[in-house]
Amino acid sequence: MRWQRKDLLALEPLTRDEINLILDTAVPMKDIIRRDIKKVPTLRGRTVINLFYEPSTRTRTSFELAGKYMGADTVNIAASGSSVVKGETLKDTAKTIQVMGADVVILRHGMAGAPKILAETVTSRVINAGDGTHEHPTQALLDLFTIRESKGSIAGLTVTIVGDILHSRVARSNIWGLTKLGAKVRLVAPPTLMPPGIEQLGAEVFYRPEEALAGSDVVMALRIQKERQQKGLFPSLREYAKIYGINQERLALAKDGCLLLHPGPINRGIELSNTVADSIQSRINEQVTNGVAVRMAILFLLMGGGKGETIN
Amino acid sequence: MRWQRKDLLALEPLTRDEINLILDTAVPMKDIIRRDIKKVPTLRGRTVINLFYEPSTRTRTSFELAGKYMGADTVNIAASGSSVVKGETLKDTAKTIQVMGADVVILRHGMAGAPKILAETVTSRVINAGDGTHEHPTQALLDLFTIRESKGSIAGLTVTIVGDILHSRVARSNIWGLTKLGAKVRLVAPPTLMPPGIEQLGAEVFYRPEEALAGSDVVMALRIQKERQQKGLFPSLREYAKIYGINQERLALAKDGCLLLHPGPINRGIELSNTVADSIQSRINEQVTNGVAVRMAILFLLMGGGKGETIN
Amino acid sequence: MRWQRKDLLALEPLTRDEINLILDTAVPMKDIIRRDIKKVPTLRGRTVINLFYEPSTRTRTSFELAGKYMGADTVNIAASGSSVVKGETLKDTAKTIQVMGADVVILRHGMAGAPKILAETVTSRVINAGDGTHEHPTQALLDLFTIRESKGSIAGLTVTIVGDILHSRVARSNIWGLTKLGAKVRLVAPPTLMPPGIEQLGAEVFYRPEEALAGSDVVMALRIQKERQQKGLFPSLREYAKIYGINQERLALAKDGCLLLHPGPINRGIELSNTVADSIQSRINEQVTNGVAVRMAILFLLMGGGKGETIN
Repeated sequence: MRWQRKDLLALEPLTRDEINLILDTAVPMKDIIRRDIKKVPTLRGRTVINLFYEPSTRTRTSFELAGKYMGADTVNIAASGSSVVKGETLKDTAKTIQVMGADVVILRHGMAGAPKILAETVTSRVINAGDGTHEHPTQALLDLFTIRESKGSIAGLTVTIVGDILHSRVARSNIWGLTKLGAKVRLVAPPTLMPPGIEQLGAEVFYRPEEALAGSDVVMALRIQKERQQKGLFPSLREYAKIYGINQERLALAKDGCLLLHPGPINRGIELSNTVADSIQSRINEQVTNGVAVRMAILFLLMGGGKGETIN
Repeated sequence: MRWQRKDLLALEPLTRDEINLILDTAVPMKDIIRRDIKKVPTLRGRTVINLFYEPSTRTRTSFELAGKYMGADTVNIAASGSSVVKGETLKDTAKTIQVMGADVVILRHGMAGAPKILAETVTSRVINAGDGTHEHPTQALLDLFTIRESKGSIAGLTVTIVGDILHSRVARSNIWGLTKLGAKVRLVAPPTLMPPGIEQLGAEVFYRPEEALAGSDVVMALRIQKERQQKGLFPSLREYAKIYGINQERLALAKDGCLLLHPGPINRGIELSNTVADSIQSRINEQVTNGVAVRMAILFLLMGGGKGETIN
Repeated sequence: MRWQRKDLLALEPLTRDEINLILDTAVPMKDIIRRDIKKVPTLRGRTVINLFYEPSTRTRTSFELAGKYMGADTVNIAASGSSVVKGETLKDTAKTIQVMGADVVILRHGMAGAPKILAETVTSRVINAGDGTHEHPTQALLDLFTIRESKGSIAGLTVTIVGDILHSRVARSNIWGLTKLGAKVRLVAPPTLMPPGIEQLGAEVFYRPEEALAGSDVVMALRIQKERQQKGLFPSLREYAKIYGINQERLALAKDGCLLLHPGPINRGIELSNTVADSIQSRINEQVTNGVAVRMAILFLLMGGGKGETIN
């Protein structure tokens, strides 16, 4: 199978085969990251632009390293200033970046759908690095890679996502990816953080973590916004930690060998107790390495990796 | 002919032959940008520092890519903090950058003349990336390249620059460059934005765009400062757009095939209507590509390109 | 002798032989910086991360260039936001950077001891680029290199450090380094800026610069915080300059050929008069070049330079 799409905008439109192609391609990429000399010339002379309208050191660095490990030139653009950027302005910015010679534009934007607008405007390949509350496909792909790596396959597993589902593009991308690969997805959140109608995506909704965790193969905790506390929202961080925080006791309700995932950075003592965050069940550090590997795979595939180039 | 100057500080002192040497050198550079593999080893082991005392993602990225495409190492320094930087401090900063091994320092600074001070202080080559309201020579060179590319030659053309001439280093550099290459330059602006005595540079002054546009081969619209509106200055953005904005009706007054240029980013609906900005007369995207090509040419020439190195 | 340590956290624990190994290794590195083509492939495929919790363009650029001159990939992370970063969060950040593939993490942090926490957490090598008022080992190493380069050797010299000793990690690292290499160290400061008990580190304490300068081979002036003036602290900048500023008259009290050092950037007219800053006794620009050379040496040694790699 060969990669056919110009862009990676979301997991919703991808087929199971396309997702598996990315995951399969990421396997040799991970070997490169583990080498002493992390450098292949695969993307030499190619230009990757990180265009971030929201700050994200973690995701930006992951993409920057993915590009550099493959020999690409990388340029970072922190497009701050106005919080609301009009679509028309984004198009002009994107066009400018394209005609400067960018092969790939990686876009993080506060507005759902911004990467799609950009992809339709430019001939450069576009990768969505998170758009509003819509999708964050590379995060979900690294989660899928991590689960597959530990469990062998994803089909038939029960994966429980706990946290602020309402505002989480990570959850949304994971629901699409996990269900396409045959996992059962359970969602657990306080009622105020559970989007109405989300079960239509094929996930099962819970409000008590104890019920959802029973029989789970994987628990994925989401990051909670610390600003909730300041704004006096319900649940507060303290209330959230008490009812939804994953600790040893709750994790013990899941299946033996249940994996623990978190997109990071962790608010320790809130989403996760220190004990479970650093336990052997935790795959949180592995997720970070896999994030670079998956992004290398996507850069490789989008820039013609299916056309016969070899990774040496 | 060979390049002799250490620095590129302004277009005012350049001869016609020097300007043409830069434009000629940029031609093969543009071919490199259009390649799949945009990488030549011409400047390998050379170090280019972007020293920007004013933010400018667009110009900084253009220089950064120009360096990277030729294999140079590039380092960005955002020298913010104090808005007014004393000359003495600038000299110390520049000297520091030189003795770290910088071959070229690209300086954007709010003070007219800052690049000259720097050039006299350091042995590194210095490129002016915009100094106060003085000059922005690489912007004018890309404009000249763009006009020459479309029109074949510049001599004998009538070029109308419309906008805030008073505060525009782009206009000043273009007046020097265009007149040296034999074009007739017309300036159009509201009386409050037209610098007194500017006709002494060899340009013709207009206050009504309709008069200036008639018979023009090229229209170059400048960016207007959005802050005018907030400060209650005359003309406001709305007034400016109504009287000086370039739209289809006004552009039709110029010669058939008249080119439309703008240094970007465009305030759509103010300097330009959407229709003309995206028309076949617009060379705005081409200008951006040409900006990288011209900057590659300048880096090449300043670092000894005249001494027999070949571009492969 | 071969380098054995995983990290460079401070000069306090280093032996004289270890310090000399770094200084000896920096000699050929300085030759590379002076070449036209400043590029060796020694660290090709290695990744160096600048993790700066305090802004420092000068030190960051020096490390970035040191990495690039040796062919490493460099990534900058400005970890701003919260001024006080909890140790636990720093550990998670560091672990994240390690598992992305960082070979070396260069840490600047406001908290004394932060690099040690990081070094104990990650397998990546860690270099302290300044931690609180604790140490700034690479600055002291470049000072040692500069003195040795001009004076032939350090043993037996009298070095006077003048300025805000209390808040200076540079002074602390220099006291360790200079005394280990056999120099006598004199400290001069206003009583409010002299840490009590500092003579226990083997330095002699003075309050009048005239007494300390007499017989000195090297004078090292420290940077004074300009904020003192605003906060109304004693001494003010004006008072400091009058009593402790190094000018021609005071410098004449030292031995003939006494060297003048300053970590930069200089507050001209405060720590140093213009005349002495630009005199032939000043080694301030040389210090900057030597800073890159010393950092190249440390990167080389930490990444296995003692294992037989050659610098070509």
